[in-house]
Amino acid sequence: MAPISADLRNDLEDAANRMRVSAIEMTSAAKSGHPTSSTSAAEIMATLFFNEMKYDVAEPKSPHADRFILSKGHACPILYAAWEEAGLLSHQDVLSLRRIDSDIEGHPTPRLNFIDVATGSLGQGLSCAAGMAYVGKNIDKASYRVFCLMGDGESAEGAVWEAASFASHYQLDNLVAIVDVNRLGQSQETQLGHHVEVYRDRFAAFGFNTLIVDGHNVEELLNAWEVARNTKGKPTAVIARTFKGQGIEGVANEDNWHGKPVPNDKIDAIKARFHGSSKGKLTAQKPTQDAPLVDLHIGSIKMSDPPAYKKGDKVATRAAYGTALAKLGKANPRVIGLDGDTKNSTYSEKLLKERPSQFIECFIAEQNLVGVAVGAQCRGRTIPFASTFAAFFSRAYDQLRMGAVSFANLKCAGSHVGVSIGEDGPSQMALEDLAMFRAIPGSTVFYPSDAVSAERATELAANINGIVFLRTGRPALGVLYENEEKFEVGKAKVLRENEKDSVLLIGAGVTLYECLKAADELAKEGVSACVIDLFTIKPIDAETIIKHAKRVGNKVITVEDHYAAGGIGEAVSAAVADAGSIRVRSLCVATVPRSGPPDDLVDLFGISARHIVTAVKNFH
Amino acid sequence: MAPISADLRNDLEDAANRMRVSAIEMTSAAKSGHPTSSTSAAEIMATLFFNEMKYDVAEPKSPHADRFILSKGHACPILYAAWEEAGLLSHQDVLSLRRIDSDIEGHPTPRLNFIDVATGSLGQGLSCAAGMAYVGKNIDKASYRVFCLMGDGESAEGAVWEAASFASHYQLDNLVAIVDVNRLGQSQETQLGHHVEVYRDRFAAFGFNTLIVDGHNVEELLNAWEVARNTKGKPTAVIARTFKGQGIEGVANEDNWHGKPVPNDKIDAIKARFHGSSKGKLTAQKPTQDAPLVDLHIGSIKMSDPPAYKKGDKVATRAAYGTALAKLGKANPRVIGLDGDTKNSTYSEKLLKERPSQFIECFIAEQNLVGVAVGAQCRGRTIPFASTFAAFFSRAYDQLRMGAVSFANLKCAGSHVGVSIGEDGPSQMALEDLAMFRAIPGSTVFYPSDAVSAERATELAANINGIVFLRTGRPALGVLYENEEKFEVGKAKVLRENEKDSVLLIGAGVTLYECLKAADELAKEGVSACVIDLFTIKPIDAETIIKHAKRVGNKVITVEDHYAAGGIGEAVSAAVADAGSIRVRSLCVATVPRSGPPDDLVDLFGISARHIVTAVKNFH
Repeated sequence: MAPISADLRNDLEDAANRMRVSAIEMTSAAKSGHPTSSTSAAEIMATLFFNEMKYDVAEPKSPHADRFILSKGHACPILYAAWEEAGLLSHQDVLSLRRIDSDIEGHPTPRLNFIDVATGSLGQGLSCAAGMAYVGKNIDKASYRVFCLMGDGESAEGAVWEAASFASHYQLDNLVAIVDVNRLGQSQETQLGHHVEVYRDRFAAFGFNTLIVDGHNVEELLNAWEVARNTKGKPTAVIARTFKGQGIEGVANEDNWHGKPVPNDKIDAIKARFHGSSKGKLTAQKPTQDAPLVDLHIGSIKMSDPPAYKKGDKVATRAAYGTALAKLGKANPRVIGLDGDTKNSTYSEKLLKERPSQFIECFIAEQNLVGVAVGAQCRGRTIPFASTFAAFFSRAYDQLRMGAVSFANLKCAGSHVGVSIGEDGPSQMALEDLAMFRAIPGSTVFYPSDAVSAERATELAANINGIVFLRTGRPALGVLYENEEKFEVGKAKVLRENEKDSVLLIGAGVTLYECLKAADELAKEGVSACVIDLFTIKPIDAETIIKHAKRVGNKVITVEDHYAAGGIGEAVSAAVADAGSIRVRSLCVATVPRSGPPDDLVDLFGISARHIVTAVKNFH
Repeated sequence: MAPISADLRNDLEDAANRMRVSAIEMTSAAKSGHPTSSTSAAEIMATLFFNEMKYDVAEPKSPHADRFILSKGHACPILYAAWEEAGLLSHQDVLSLRRIDSDIEGHPTPRLNFIDVATGSLGQGLSCAAGMAYVGKNIDKASYRVFCLMGDGESAEGAVWEAASFASHYQLDNLVAIVDVNRLGQSQETQLGHHVEVYRDRFAAFGFNTLIVDGHNVEELLNAWEVARNTKGKPTAVIARTFKGQGIEGVANEDNWHGKPVPNDKIDAIKARFHGSSKGKLTAQKPTQDAPLVDLHIGSIKMSDPPAYKKGDKVATRAAYGTALAKLGKANPRVIGLDGDTKNSTYSEKLLKERPSQFIECFIAEQNLVGVAVGAQCRGRTIPFASTFAAFFSRAYDQLRMGAVSFANLKCAGSHVGVSIGEDGPSQMALEDLAMFRAIPGSTVFYPSDAVSAERATELAANINGIVFLRTGRPALGVLYENEEKFEVGKAKVLRENEKDSVLLIGAGVTLYECLKAADELAKEGVSACVIDLFTIKPIDAETIIKHAKRVGNKVITVEDHYAAGGIGEAVSAAVADAGSIRVRSLCVATVPRSGPPDDLVDLFGISARHIVTAVKNFH
């Protein structure tokens, strides 16, 4: 460990203490927030921001700059203070903390130009950081590095260990994880207290180079950053022993100070420790300009080749998704695929085969799968398509929720939906995925029913800025559309239309075929049914639904391989709710299903053609 | 390591091979399933079931018996084979694997009398096992032990490490985790391959006693079980090096055999290795009968004292939840509380203070929080109430989904819902929790609006067999009901009713108060509005809604501190969808919210009284 100059030490300590003071002042002004969680990290932040990280204050989100993720998002006052110290924010800016007219929010969001991902739901930052680091090392092949500051309490979150295992597996030596071990959680001491050696052992077992430091000693911290910088082949974890509320007399290391402002007069004692160096003396090194230029503007992402099917060919939509993803990847080197060891089922392996360098295997860790994808899309570096069984996206629902708060440009493809997967049984059947993804603000939800529309949905997804869900199915079903058919977001297709129609049937995926079968059956009995393929579940094509519902006499039957809540029936009911005359009946899966052959289950759970015919006959 | 007799070894090897043969036969008969994942565990299962675990075949779910959780649920053929070997199932039974008329499902579910929790979504078993072990050690204080068999691929799931940290923190020495390290995942080799020493180091760092064994060597396995049995103060992890497809010639340790039946002729070579001992020779030891009798029959769980508020008192529903939970715990020693380091915010700490032994701190690990609760309710041992911020239940959505497949009797209380939490911002605001919990099959969802109804909802929740969600709020709002008011599941309360009513307003929580304010405003202008408190969101009181909607002229406005999808507006729209004349308009949060004062956010996001008044005026 090379000794540092007294000047540098004094400058860094002063920066840390100025940031401490600012964090206290802003939370006092806001009358809420987390000053104690902030001050434990003051020296960590000062040394990182003013002696290690490379960035340009004029362009905090430059593709070339080092990334910093504050996984312990509640400590954001110290992050705002760091950017104040760096000159990006004024003191007036940071004093607007938590005000409704300020983007200096209670937890960080990318409304601010120096935030890549929203944090505040603990344990998610390291996955995002690992996604950025993976892209930096393997796709950008650039020299920027990624720093992620976590709390100790949040290391109880399993997502941290999913990310840690991923980071070491891919030897992400451009990633530094820092744990601010300040001992105290929200409601009591953490599981591990100040046993920093246990944190070290855990990260070591998960493949990290590890160091324990006194997190309030700038010399030890600078040494740690140097070790991390020089460690090759593995990521580094710095375990920093700190005190919650450090520097605040009568508060530091005491219980019951989580999430509470501290009296402003505590500031005087901190100021008394200033060595006399002034703000602005320390500046960050500029980044190396070696990240390639990437242009992923909306509307520019096309498949290499159009769909190539014959009507009636039996193709599963999951297979068509894989084909489309491979075609997108072939034409666009920044379209990437990620999967959770289901690539031979979701068919994302088609991209792996076509473009191995554009595929990231994330193993059986869906939280990290989504977190890595969120990280990978930051600063417009890639368009990530994450795939797994749709049911297993439920494992990452918090990451998806936070992805929305991050305004992430993320595509999720979930296969194996509903009872129509068959014998594997209910644990593998997605029956709440539409509810889940529809409830993501700003999301788009596609539910293509055949191979042509599945390919087009995938292509459209790549050209929507936001979270998109593609619901794909397991069974191979007949191609319904010509290859030339045009598809648009939010536009349904009317598959059967006749002036004698007396009922509107709405299905998607396997149930669309059941609707068509039912329409055939009914036709034999002289009953004519309009059949609509929604294609997009959100935004829903209310106009087309209402138009045809009114035309057929206001009777709509929805049929879905999904539970009632948040599914197609509710979406349609809500879409027509203000029309005032349209009646909607919903056929859906009502109870926990079971194992069995797909067709038998579709019938047993009441969503087969037979049940649709009965429902039509009983609809008076 | 004491040597074992040749007889015992032969008997156990024969049992393992008979189970292997059966697993192959049943998957061949089903034409699907996972024989190779099964045969890697044959010796592990044989030695556990026939020389270590204590149970009574006549009563597999006796409260006294050792518990076994197959976390790698896709390997269930070997579990079914074990119970066949034990004499519980016939060979004909197991050959019905995956048939629609059979409970021998593709992944285990508690439809079978020897399954406690459904598995098949990987990485969840250890949490449930830890919940059972915690209850066994600290609440039942009984001698039963808990064994959990995991796959190697699933150890990438963070939930495993949440559970591991919990198990060592609480020194659950009655818990044995076994990892079947067969090297191969579904689509490729696992992250760690056959590096059993890394698994060992990880479990050791997470506080387990650890052993590495050859998972096909019965002597080593028996020794491991003995070490585990004699290890006090910490749980034991046995890392078993195995081969996927072990015993199947040309298949063992080969790629591309995941989830595929193998040719039946492979059985001959396995049979040729039989030593000649016969089924039924080995029997399990009976359990010690020392688990206390527990009676938790539905309808018997009462609070120690009734609600005690004055109308108009300002009380947050989260605080009333805590009060009710403490009263339930006081009167019922088997009502327990669990929290994820938010107990001072959810107010579950009131139970901790009243009955410390009935509270389990689960730290910041929500997947494990729910998993432990699911484990704790098994065999009717406890009624668990798990609480955290409602937003963070999204972290455990897969566990909740699987809880439904497990038919779990689980109560979840989620606080801090919607934009009305204020300054902490969107990461902490639950706005999709209704969608999430409504989509759980068989669930009940309460959204009490005042303290009296919150206490009664909590008491009702304890008397419903199934998954119940209680949505509680942060702001302290006026008590609306008398302490004597009766509440029923699925019954709404009509708070304002007048023969001149021309619109129906439906709110819940903070928006119910906004509806009441709006009704007051409108009354000044001569417009009379009916106001309904739904109390239960699922099942919804369609009858009351339709009755009053029709009475007021078919105009309904729903107002909710939640996103549109799967929320109150859609629930009401669906409830009236077949009525044919009722129009529903929904006020809800439409975009990602931000930090700010609660009342200002309620207004900014369009769900305040002012917006309701405008909506009523524009509803023609």
